[in-house]
Amino acid sequence: MTRWKLSDLVRHCGGTLIGSGRDFTVNSLAALDQAGPADVSFLSNPKYRESLKTTRAGAVLLTESIPGTPFQIIRVDDPYLALARILTLLHPTRLPGIGVHPTAVIKPGTRLGSNVRIDANVVVESNVTIGDGTALFPGTTIGEDSIIGNDCIFYPNVTLYHSVNVGSRVIIHAGSVIGSDGFGFAREGAKYIKIPQIGGVTIGDDVEIGACCTIDRGSMSHTRISSGTKLDNMIMLAHNVAVGEDTAIAAQTGISGSTKIGNRVIIAGQVGVVGHIKIGDEAIITAKCGVTKSVPEKTMLSGFPSMIHKKWLRVQGVLGNALKMKSELNALKTKIVELESKITQLEDKKDD
Amino acid sequence: MTRWKLSDLVRHCGGTLIGSGRDFTVNSLAALDQAGPADVSFLSNPKYRESLKTTRAGAVLLTESIPGTPFQIIRVDDPYLALARILTLLHPTRLPGIGVHPTAVIKPGTRLGSNVRIDANVVVESNVTIGDGTALFPGTTIGEDSIIGNDCIFYPNVTLYHSVNVGSRVIIHAGSVIGSDGFGFAREGAKYIKIPQIGGVTIGDDVEIGACCTIDRGSMSHTRISSGTKLDNMIMLAHNVAVGEDTAIAAQTGISGSTKIGNRVIIAGQVGVVGHIKIGDEAIITAKCGVTKSVPEKTMLSGFPSMIHKKWLRVQGVLGNALKMKSELNALKTKIVELESKITQLEDKKDD
Amino acid sequence: MTRWKLSDLVRHCGGTLIGSGRDFTVNSLAALDQAGPADVSFLSNPKYRESLKTTRAGAVLLTESIPGTPFQIIRVDDPYLALARILTLLHPTRLPGIGVHPTAVIKPGTRLGSNVRIDANVVVESNVTIGDGTALFPGTTIGEDSIIGNDCIFYPNVTLYHSVNVGSRVIIHAGSVIGSDGFGFAREGAKYIKIPQIGGVTIGDDVEIGACCTIDRGSMSHTRISSGTKLDNMIMLAHNVAVGEDTAIAAQTGISGSTKIGNRVIIAGQVGVVGHIKIGDEAIITAKCGVTKSVPEKTMLSGFPSMIHKKWLRVQGVLGNALKMKSELNALKTKIVELESKITQLEDKKDD
Repeated sequence: MTRWKLSDLVRHCGGTLIGSGRDFTVNSLAALDQAGPADVSFLSNPKYRESLKTTRAGAVLLTESIPGTPFQIIRVDDPYLALARILTLLHPTRLPGIGVHPTAVIKPGTRLGSNVRIDANVVVESNVTIGDGTALFPGTTIGEDSIIGNDCIFYPNVTLYHSVNVGSRVIIHAGSVIGSDGFGFAREGAKYIKIPQIGGVTIGDDVEIGACCTIDRGSMSHTRISSGTKLDNMIMLAHNVAVGEDTAIAAQTGISGSTKIGNRVIIAGQVGVVGHIKIGDEAIITAKCGVTKSVPEKTMLSGFPSMIHKKWLRVQGVLGNALKMKSELNALKTKIVELESKITQLEDKKDD
Repeated sequence: MTRWKLSDLVRHCGGTLIGSGRDFTVNSLAALDQAGPADVSFLSNPKYRESLKTTRAGAVLLTESIPGTPFQIIRVDDPYLALARILTLLHPTRLPGIGVHPTAVIKPGTRLGSNVRIDANVVVESNVTIGDGTALFPGTTIGEDSIIGNDCIFYPNVTLYHSVNVGSRVIIHAGSVIGSDGFGFAREGAKYIKIPQIGGVTIGDDVEIGACCTIDRGSMSHTRISSGTKLDNMIMLAHNVAVGEDTAIAAQTGISGSTKIGNRVIIAGQVGVVGHIKIGDEAIITAKCGVTKSVPEKTMLSGFPSMIHKKWLRVQGVLGNALKMKSELNALKTKIVELESKITQLEDKKDD
Repeated sequence: MTRWKLSDLVRHCGGTLIGSGRDFTVNSLAALDQAGPADVSFLSNPKYRESLKTTRAGAVLLTESIPGTPFQIIRVDDPYLALARILTLLHPTRLPGIGVHPTAVIKPGTRLGSNVRIDANVVVESNVTIGDGTALFPGTTIGEDSIIGNDCIFYPNVTLYHSVNVGSRVIIHAGSVIGSDGFGFAREGAKYIKIPQIGGVTIGDDVEIGACCTIDRGSMSHTRISSGTKLDNMIMLAHNVAVGEDTAIAAQTGISGSTKIGNRVIIAGQVGVVGHIKIGDEAIITAKCGVTKSVPEKTMLSGFPSMIHKKWLRVQGVLGNALKMKSELNALKTKIVELESKITQLEDKKDD
């Protein structure tokens, strides 16, 4: 961990220091109840507000100024964002050393940028381009004809198949597979005949892909992930899927072939999306949803089969009371038999 | 990409050429709206029929003959199947070079067939048999006593544990794990005691296994995948599962221990199947289904708990209208109170 | 396979031998209908009781004594537990040879215990501690500053990131990733800004982690798996999750960030659990459940949204009959119209 002064942190996160102005070498960033006098802490969730009274932190990231605190206040508009910036300063990513480890295998025709960091047992196949400052952890394999931008980080045992294009500052976590064949077969009687998947994969800048994801290559064109999009772990993108910019997808979600997902979409965990549909910009899909048709922009969807989230909540309310509904229905049946017999009596009486 | 003449393609896919008979060197296969004069295109989905009027393709795969088209027609019975065959010709699979890369580790007692392609950093443990023409991409590990047939392709970072038998022409995509221990424990009080999993895995011919799948070894006998079966990515087969021939399973589906799946079954994505049941031949299980009991052959199943697909559709119709049903129920309750009061009035009148 | 005498097995599993007392060299352990005279078999599921009459096994693990059987009986309290012990004796885990394979890369500052087994192409980064007898299969990578206890087994292509602490006798199956970054981002307008994940992962003793699991590191503190807990394949634990002791989680389940799971909990497959909740000790969560709020101890939960299992069963019963309910509702509507018309007639008559 690099050592920084409090004043460096304040400057780096664009905050204003309110307090004694005492500068100190920051130890780390810690939760309010765990921070000591050399630590910086933060309040982003108001429910921890009480901890401000007892924290031993030397400084706290806050959106407001509180008079007379024993700690100094770093006033910022968004403590969570300031936290991200300060952590980036205090804890730079651990990378392999600059250079190519002697056990790495670099096949002919590869162009390596300056300051690449290629660790032990990495395999780079022929005709690959790797940009400046990119780091490949042990056991990662890059297929031929792939192009990787600058300052990317691929963690251990990542697999890129051939003809995968990756932008700059892309992070791919361990065990992920980019460019595996899409699931495409023709039938010849009962037999499946493989359709060669001749497309590739294109990934924009500033994308992060979690651990053990699988991104299939396109059948003819490219599977695409646009800039700024973040995937959690164990996400499956089928062939020809296109994901827009600044979209976030949580773990264990699967997107079927040729579906297009817009910009700034949020998809929760364990969601399944059928193929050949469109999910509009800024749509939100909640956990375990099974999306069966296209989703307009800015729509919140839930359930399986999927429906508008608000309707889903009400439907679940009714269904959760299905037992009550059933017993009400039975009560009505009894009641109607009762009424019917009364009416028969009245009719009989009348006929008297 | 290998270069072929149009006439080669026509012969290879068993089609009939209708048109000028002009032969040309084919550039590639492309969608109707993207093909140029040196490309072959195809129409398999009738909804793209309009594109036939504007395509610049040199030749198009069609089931029929259309007079006076600017392109030549390759008439075939099944354009999708012809497409598969032509793509296989135009785009042969990219494989590592023939031979054993100097960084590969081949332990003693291994028998390598002719023309094997073993890439960098592959590890083959003792007493393994690898058939003719089989290709192992970087970082793949083959456990001891395993037997692999001819012309298999294992992509990077595949793991085979010991005692796994694989047929010929089997493709395993990157990151998949074959032969990991089944999840089997005895209890000793609150503690779990591992039951060693002494079975293996047997995989037939022409099987394809997607990326990041896990196929557990059998507890005593073998976990089995029969010939011609295709698994998409991230599929989990638990110990002692048996999958029949020519079955297709989509991504993120899990099959619990000892379940037997028949031949020509289709299972969609994110399905879960409980253990110790049978799924009959040619059954179809739709996405996200939770199969809780055995399924007769040729049955289509949906939902969780699972039910016959047609019933599920109708049940979902009703449930999606649960709000309406609830309000109808409330309306009936009000109505009955009304009727009851009228009857009481009548009874009172009568008694007058 | 090591060879043992029947008398060794009887002693090892704590059983009592009833029969001829004839000792023999045991071939293997096999199912009743597959065992031969040199095999030991077992009856743990009463439904296979009939097979006792026809088995050719030399000895059978039973909870009771049956007079006059052709096989000898090893009487034990729990045949399944005895089976686990005998299999452990007959089939010790296959491990790489003792020592460090010449192709393994051990970076400076690493402390290796005695009798470690480090196979080909393993990479151990700087400042790692590996305990006595621990085995690392090919392609496994251990990140810097990690500490691994004694007698652990990590199968091929496992990735440990930096600062992961693992106890003793821990088994991690192939392709699993421990210590990948949690999914944590701040927003700056539409852009996601990565929050460095500075916590680690701590794993207790006797934990088993299946193939292709992903255990994210903590955001500030550690993600934790306590001693004796067993995870099946493809399980996702998000940052800051804590799992208690002797808990079992089945395949393809995901636990969202900061959720705490108690001791001796059982979670079935394809379950999703939201973040920031608590699952009490000895709770049971059934397959495909979506757990949306904290669960008291010893509670059995099902469905999505989750509810008490018994209620869920009854609700599913009603919902499965939704079509019948709907038609009953329609019948009541018709009936009420009928009654209403009769009442009107009566009212008319009365007014006559």
